[in-house]
Amino acid sequence: MTSDSLARQLASRARGAGRNDLAVLFALAERPDVISFAGGFPDPAWFRPEFREVADQILTDNPGAALQYGPTPGLTAFRELVAQRSETQGVPAGVDNILITSGSLQGLDLVCKVFLDPGDVVVVEDPTYLGAIQTIAGYDGVMVGVTGDDKGLRVDALDEAVTTLVRQGRRPKFIYTVPSFQNPTGLTLTLERRHALLDVAARRDLPVVEDHAYAELHYEGRPLPSLAALAAGAGAAGAADSADADGPLVIHLGTFSKIFSPGLRLGWVVAPPAVIGQLIRFKQGADQCSNTLGQLMALEFGRRGLIDAQIATTRASLRAKRDLTLAALHRHFGDLGAAGQPGAVQYTVPDGGFYTWVSLPREGMGVGAGMDTAAMLALAITEHQVAYVAGPAFYAGSGGRHQLRVCFSLVSPTLIDEGIARLRRAVEAWTNR
Amino acid sequence: MTSDSLARQLASRARGAGRNDLAVLFALAERPDVISFAGGFPDPAWFRPEFREVADQILTDNPGAALQYGPTPGLTAFRELVAQRSETQGVPAGVDNILITSGSLQGLDLVCKVFLDPGDVVVVEDPTYLGAIQTIAGYDGVMVGVTGDDKGLRVDALDEAVTTLVRQGRRPKFIYTVPSFQNPTGLTLTLERRHALLDVAARRDLPVVEDHAYAELHYEGRPLPSLAALAAGAGAAGAADSADADGPLVIHLGTFSKIFSPGLRLGWVVAPPAVIGQLIRFKQGADQCSNTLGQLMALEFGRRGLIDAQIATTRASLRAKRDLTLAALHRHFGDLGAAGQPGAVQYTVPDGGFYTWVSLPREGMGVGAGMDTAAMLALAITEHQVAYVAGPAFYAGSGGRHQLRVCFSLVSPTLIDEGIARLRRAVEAWTNR
Repeated sequence: MTSDSLARQLASRARGAGRNDLAVLFALAERPDVISFAGGFPDPAWFRPEFREVADQILTDNPGAALQYGPTPGLTAFRELVAQRSETQGVPAGVDNILITSGSLQGLDLVCKVFLDPGDVVVVEDPTYLGAIQTIAGYDGVMVGVTGDDKGLRVDALDEAVTTLVRQGRRPKFIYTVPSFQNPTGLTLTLERRHALLDVAARRDLPVVEDHAYAELHYEGRPLPSLAALAAGAGAAGAADSADADGPLVIHLGTFSKIFSPGLRLGWVVAPPAVIGQLIRFKQGADQCSNTLGQLMALEFGRRGLIDAQIATTRASLRAKRDLTLAALHRHFGDLGAAGQPGAVQYTVPDGGFYTWVSLPREGMGVGAGMDTAAMLALAITEHQVAYVAGPAFYAGSGGRHQLRVCFSLVSPTLIDEGIARLRRAVEAWTNR
Repeated sequence: MTSDSLARQLASRARGAGRNDLAVLFALAERPDVISFAGGFPDPAWFRPEFREVADQILTDNPGAALQYGPTPGLTAFRELVAQRSETQGVPAGVDNILITSGSLQGLDLVCKVFLDPGDVVVVEDPTYLGAIQTIAGYDGVMVGVTGDDKGLRVDALDEAVTTLVRQGRRPKFIYTVPSFQNPTGLTLTLERRHALLDVAARRDLPVVEDHAYAELHYEGRPLPSLAALAAGAGAAGAADSADADGPLVIHLGTFSKIFSPGLRLGWVVAPPAVIGQLIRFKQGADQCSNTLGQLMALEFGRRGLIDAQIATTRASLRAKRDLTLAALHRHFGDLGAAGQPGAVQYTVPDGGFYTWVSLPREGMGVGAGMDTAAMLALAITEHQVAYVAGPAFYAGSGGRHQLRVCFSLVSPTLIDEGIARLRRAVEAWTNR
């Protein structure tokens, strides 16, 4: 078959250039000379030593089950564990509210399969998680971005955007949001805005897909309640304020990738049984079931309290890395002016999660043309041995040319300062090239 | 959100009743009192004792890599192993020809994503693998079934069907076929027909998606070359016979579920790099990467020759189970007449794989109405403690009401005869109800 005849056979979604952002990130992570602030990877130092012992126990006690197909929705005992964890976080759930997925991105993939016809609109944050952009685009979804500020998504702008879309006959199918320690900005939606967002969702009768990936990784204190918790707990009150007695629908996506192991590919969805049933229906044709050995390992970790122990380690490590990263940004970029001043470099101050979001001066720092973090990346990697993700990858439309995401989760504490110093040199070299 | 407003938000593919065949099968497998010829599960007795030791070794030597995200296309060393296995089977392949998937069904899912717009036609065998039907339906693909006989798919009928479709302006996007030890029939496409099928594919310029799930599980002798091997090896000659100098495109789907462990969810695709690149693009948004620990375990199994050892065990076990199953069918249904006679029960004689395909007399065996294996299933399970998959699940359109699939892979040799005896009693009870 020639390439011409192959091209003729392709689906419309496969024509044109693809975005290979995730694949590129994962490849970058393999170069040892580069200090990579790119991929959102957990630090292997957080992985518990008990992994080995737990795997051994499972493969000794019950290899037949551990290596066999599992039920499509997940092993019942594991769904129970996830339901219990969900309850602890304020989201009442039974087994029928839980679907185990192969990573949380599969949860979003299945949500797209259930809700999106080609051309359907999804409202997203601008910027948002690049994996979500790829997934939604894979269903020919049309993303409409709503901007935020340091309090997270601007709910007034969301309300306006929905109004305009409805008026145009382009009623959105759902809102996708990462309310806590957002990817890529690291910012968190305030409690007031959480209520406001749910109010918009209820009033407009729009499902909210809440990506909770980083929410358990708050550095200190108590985290804000999730949208799912607010919808469930204060649900009655919230619903009383709206025309819909049933309250807003929140589909809550969780992942074990940041609190257990990404290599075992496990996530979950919490949603009403009617939605879970639809997701199960399409999971059958996607990968039949999630990997069984991993489910049994996570179940045993949960029973022993090791997930919570790993979370505690992770929080402390991330907090220290955040402090080092912000100090390094101040040290190596602070000469350009205090945050908020013209010409200054701005960066967010996260209270949890993996990321800070850096905005460079739009005009660059030297005699060169305007900043372009995507164009700069090759030079940064090859000449200065530092990697990041360029801002445009996180925008459904255009934007982010002067921005970049710094992920500090995987970088050794001893290398963070050097990495940010390299970033400064790369920015200078690029603008003066 | 009310159920009405939820319904309004759904994609068209999620409206109406779904087929939950796979989920139901996986649930059935959990009932201990039932002798289940239903799910296509490997026998845990085939799993190697080394699983434990290999997991221990990997989690001792390199837990950081085993528990971390892997590259989207799969770990390079593992892709190399799969490429080498592919070469051994006559399909020349380098790393760029290989994508690691989360089970072979994900391979088909990604193929659908790359090739299918809603309403596009896929030509399938009638009957065919029910998982494939669910996957293709999940992309709003329209399946056109082509019948077969004891030599496998009737290629003359395929050619006719394609001619008709092209004339109607409904050019198929690809042909999906399970040429060896087919699911559900157990039958194998002859060498002559393999050449003929590739000739049709080349002449029509249609991609062939070859599901090779059971092909390594031939009970004796040497297996027929795969379509991918014929297209590659004899490729030059075959191509010379057709208008297209490049020969037919075969996308080859493999799985570790039947030869290693289904619980680790690993499969692979062999295809030209242009196709692999497209599949990788969409795997990013599906589940990012396949599970890393499983890949490292399969890699180590491969290096130690344990996959081949497991295959040898599996072949011998399956052959014995096939013999027991056919003897039991003869014993418990043979009184109805020799195969081929009116009123006789017919069943296929597989040379490999997991299945025999049973056709009951269409009119049933007693005073009752015509046979209906789907309607009979509840009675078979609850009253007679025997399970199977009813024929209609394997038809893209209608058909199979008098047929059922007997999967003998998971049933203990000591229970096969009793299971088939129960099946006979269930058929009698149902037709005389």
